[in-house]
Amino acid sequence: MNNNGITAPRGFLASGVACGLKNNKGKDLAMVVSENLAVAAGIFTTNVVKGHSLLWTKNKIKNGHARAIVINSGCANACLGARGDKDAQDMALYASSLIGCEPDNVMLGSTGVIGFPLDMDKIKKGIKSAFDSLSSQGGARAAEAIMTTDTFPKETSKTIEIDDKTITLGGMCKGSGMIHPNMATMICLITTDAAISQEMLDKALRSVAEKSFNRVSVDGDTSVCDQLVIMANGQGGNTPIISEGSDYEAFVSALLDVSVSLSKMLAKDGEGATKLIEIQVKGCKDIESAHLILNAIAKSPLVKTAFFGQDANWGRIFTAAGYSGADFDPDSVDIYLGDLMVCNNGIGLNFDEEKALEILKKDEIIVTLDFKSGQVNDRIWTCDLSYDYVKINGSYRS
Amino acid sequence: MNNNGITAPRGFLASGVACGLKNNKGKDLAMVVSENLAVAAGIFTTNVVKGHSLLWTKNKIKNGHARAIVINSGCANACLGARGDKDAQDMALYASSLIGCEPDNVMLGSTGVIGFPLDMDKIKKGIKSAFDSLSSQGGARAAEAIMTTDTFPKETSKTIEIDDKTITLGGMCKGSGMIHPNMATMICLITTDAAISQEMLDKALRSVAEKSFNRVSVDGDTSVCDQLVIMANGQGGNTPIISEGSDYEAFVSALLDVSVSLSKMLAKDGEGATKLIEIQVKGCKDIESAHLILNAIAKSPLVKTAFFGQDANWGRIFTAAGYSGADFDPDSVDIYLGDLMVCNNGIGLNFDEEKALEILKKDEIIVTLDFKSGQVNDRIWTCDLSYDYVKINGSYRS
Repeated sequence: MNNNGITAPRGFLASGVACGLKNNKGKDLAMVVSENLAVAAGIFTTNVVKGHSLLWTKNKIKNGHARAIVINSGCANACLGARGDKDAQDMALYASSLIGCEPDNVMLGSTGVIGFPLDMDKIKKGIKSAFDSLSSQGGARAAEAIMTTDTFPKETSKTIEIDDKTITLGGMCKGSGMIHPNMATMICLITTDAAISQEMLDKALRSVAEKSFNRVSVDGDTSVCDQLVIMANGQGGNTPIISEGSDYEAFVSALLDVSVSLSKMLAKDGEGATKLIEIQVKGCKDIESAHLILNAIAKSPLVKTAFFGQDANWGRIFTAAGYSGADFDPDSVDIYLGDLMVCNNGIGLNFDEEKALEILKKDEIIVTLDFKSGQVNDRIWTCDLSYDYVKINGSYRS
Repeated sequence: MNNNGITAPRGFLASGVACGLKNNKGKDLAMVVSENLAVAAGIFTTNVVKGHSLLWTKNKIKNGHARAIVINSGCANACLGARGDKDAQDMALYASSLIGCEPDNVMLGSTGVIGFPLDMDKIKKGIKSAFDSLSSQGGARAAEAIMTTDTFPKETSKTIEIDDKTITLGGMCKGSGMIHPNMATMICLITTDAAISQEMLDKALRSVAEKSFNRVSVDGDTSVCDQLVIMANGQGGNTPIISEGSDYEAFVSALLDVSVSLSKMLAKDGEGATKLIEIQVKGCKDIESAHLILNAIAKSPLVKTAFFGQDANWGRIFTAAGYSGADFDPDSVDIYLGDLMVCNNGIGLNFDEEKALEILKKDEIIVTLDFKSGQVNDRIWTCDLSYDYVKINGSYRS
């Protein structure tokens, strides 16, 4: 078993077990525990509708600390009224009684179908079994247990030197439909043994999310259970990071690497995806225009099906930019597929279709739009839209 | 041949011919001519990128009159720079020379792939052939010639009494991907023999579009060639409608019927669609919230694939409302599939799955969300998202 995820940093134990929530008998409950109380920060869905497990975490993380997180897949614990809140509380209470900590220091995550209650007998059995199998090598099992329609577990880690100490960050996340800027059916946990204040941890997380998780779109939907949480337990022994400066910058840079790596995995494993597509915009006049254009292109079903079909239909990309709500001069836009220019100053070129096909056949494609009207560059990661997306989502509940 | 479309009103001639723009040898050029100069009004795409044929029409219609319209399918005449403008002008010049009218009174429409120039030899041959075959029974052939991925021609007509005269309205349109509020890959022509001032015709068209064509969403994309134009030639002989009042109201009501009928055909024939879905919202606190919620639900791929799969996954509908940007109290929302309540005050009900399946198996499904927080009701028409949508759009250019 690799140890390349959330148990890579010192002092974190994890496990992933099957407790029967998933019809396919797969792993469906993950537990991650820090040996000591960790500093914690989180970012949560902007959806008006919020899952009960997510609401628990969102409320409890306000105290700035956490010991553990319990995440189940197979059921979202959402839209269930008082019962959903009670079940979330019971999950945290039971886990805390085993771990020996305050219930308020147990975070939760639930992902899966909305509107069906958690089977609390299964959940409690699962929590017990997960607790009994906690291991400093358990990251990969936890990453597997939080998967829903993901086709591969998503984990990564990175090691840096801060203050002459080796500091490690590890992360795991799950997608893979309902992914769109501002989070979306994503649950992500990042662990680190860095010593850092809650204020700086929160600041680092927010700045990094903007450039990574908030730049991923699978289908434009955002979910009621999306959360990104980070736990820092300080076991790395560095002088605590309590303000900006070179140590903070080094930490942010490593956190960005971990987050971008996970973000690209989310896009690449978008439901039914066969390709990772990076859309780059250059020369936009402001950041708002760049966002509008990136979001419109990344969520256009016409663009995404054309990529699936390896069809160099750049007109759809230009069209999506055009209806994005951003104001720009269409007569100054260049468009590239890979390094092949297909549109120059808003006019279609008679490009080499064979060269285009060669580019579009690849697993990873970069599309660039140059607006030549300002200094702002930005990017987003998305995927194509295939038959399998329809297949997966036409029968998700069954 | 039926005469249930644009040649149903008196004084309109039409034709549809194949001039070789479509690979499948199908009809691809339509011409519609009014015997006398008609009052005209139009609504055009909000896309920043605009097709050259559309720009011609948008500019020329400002004079308030038109004699004819020429529409080709198979090529969008878009993103071609000066050449695209020149080709549009040449189309109008050539058609006007045959019809014997001012070029400024010939409107144009082009729909198809972006970035490839019109084959003007074919276009001119087509215009000549269309002119030679103009007929007062030719509406159905014109409706066929403007189709792209449409699976059936879309036409309708309606007769009313105004001022003791029989007044007829006829319409044709094409979809069928890239359909979203604010128009989108739609080209629609409405004809009428009503006598009405340009000001009142324009007003009527705008008020009706808001409740019909702007309430259709197929895939959330909007195109560079969308236009809705209306020609009124006055041959019905009613006292001209020059102000609001009962005659105007009767005209608007008939125009709304024609427009809603065509709008529902657009949604029903969305690319790959197997079902027409009408989303209704009730009790919204304002019209902006209603729009945001309807648009988000209608363009959610997760909602649309669930309908394709006949899966009563109402959680996705609720989720889409939640991320729409509208502010509402999730704990007061009721959701119905047909007449079956599946969510009450934000809490999922243990509903009868067999009854739900019965409803979801139908060709036309009404979904209702009741927010119980205001007086605004609204609706939108959309369709499901199927394998065929991916198939059609994965290889549209080929």
